[in-house]
Amino acid sequence: MRFLSFHVDFFRYNVTTKGRSTVIEDITEENKKNQVQNALVLFISMDKSDEANAEILEKGINEIEKITKQLKISNIVIIPFAHLFGQLSSLEYAFESFKNIESLLKLKSYSVLRLPFGWFNELEMKAKGHPLSRISRIVE
Amino acid sequence: MRFLSFHVDFFRYNVTTKGRSTVIEDITEENKKNQVQNALVLFISMDKSDEANAEILEKGINEIEKITKQLKISNIVIIPFAHLFGQLSSLEYAFESFKNIESLLKLKSYSVLRLPFGWFNELEMKAKGHPLSRISRIVE
Repeated sequence: MRFLSFHVDFFRYNVTTKGRSTVIEDITEENKKNQVQNALVLFISMDKSDEANAEILEKGINEIEKITKQLKISNIVIIPFAHLFGQLSSLEYAFESFKNIESLLKLKSYSVLRLPFGWFNELEMKAKGHPLSRISRIVE
Repeated sequence: MRFLSFHVDFFRYNVTTKGRSTVIEDITEENKKNQVQNALVLFISMDKSDEANAEILEKGINEIEKITKQLKISNIVIIPFAHLFGQLSSLEYAFESFKNIESLLKLKSYSVLRLPFGWFNELEMKAKGHPLSRISRIVE
């Protein structure tokens, strides 16, 4: 699992068209667009090696929490993102993982906005400029 | 050399504080903040292996041009970005490379906005949602 994070003043997205993925999430009134303020935006992908790692989500969430606690924020945006230079897991595994990450973070009382899997989207964000405003991590 | 690109409707930045880098570019009225519309925003880093590769900038620019020609755009933003999961080159090599990329692109009549090296910055952008709106490349 790897992610690139931005601490943002605001983030907005709206779904545009289907990607070429064979796994396409259903779009509803709830997930087709949304916005949030003062959030940790995570561009995230699951690596092939994660599929055999039973602890990967727990470890990933620990890394995410280290950042949110330093920044003192409780809003998280999860963006499925295939462009982080890793060897990608299967689409099915990635989609299930992102839904599980969302659920686990909500259990910890985070407010989570997860972008739908398999779609292109417009996004708008204003990122802060402090030393922890961009972070990248490989979790394994 | 590796980059992550976003095709954006607009992009704005303003420099905030010095990073921990030992290579810090001078800030002037010209480079402390700026904005551009309809641009290819490149988050870019130079890899250790690039230092011995005499053709790396030429190859990198070829990859950038493939994208700008497909998108029919002539505005490029260069953001020095250490968070792309590569093994980084020296700071001096990276800084020289980004200045050279800027010069070479300007010779090809691109309008280039290069963010100052070694500084944190706030950034705001609105990214399009078409199939080529996010691309990542490793050039070697």
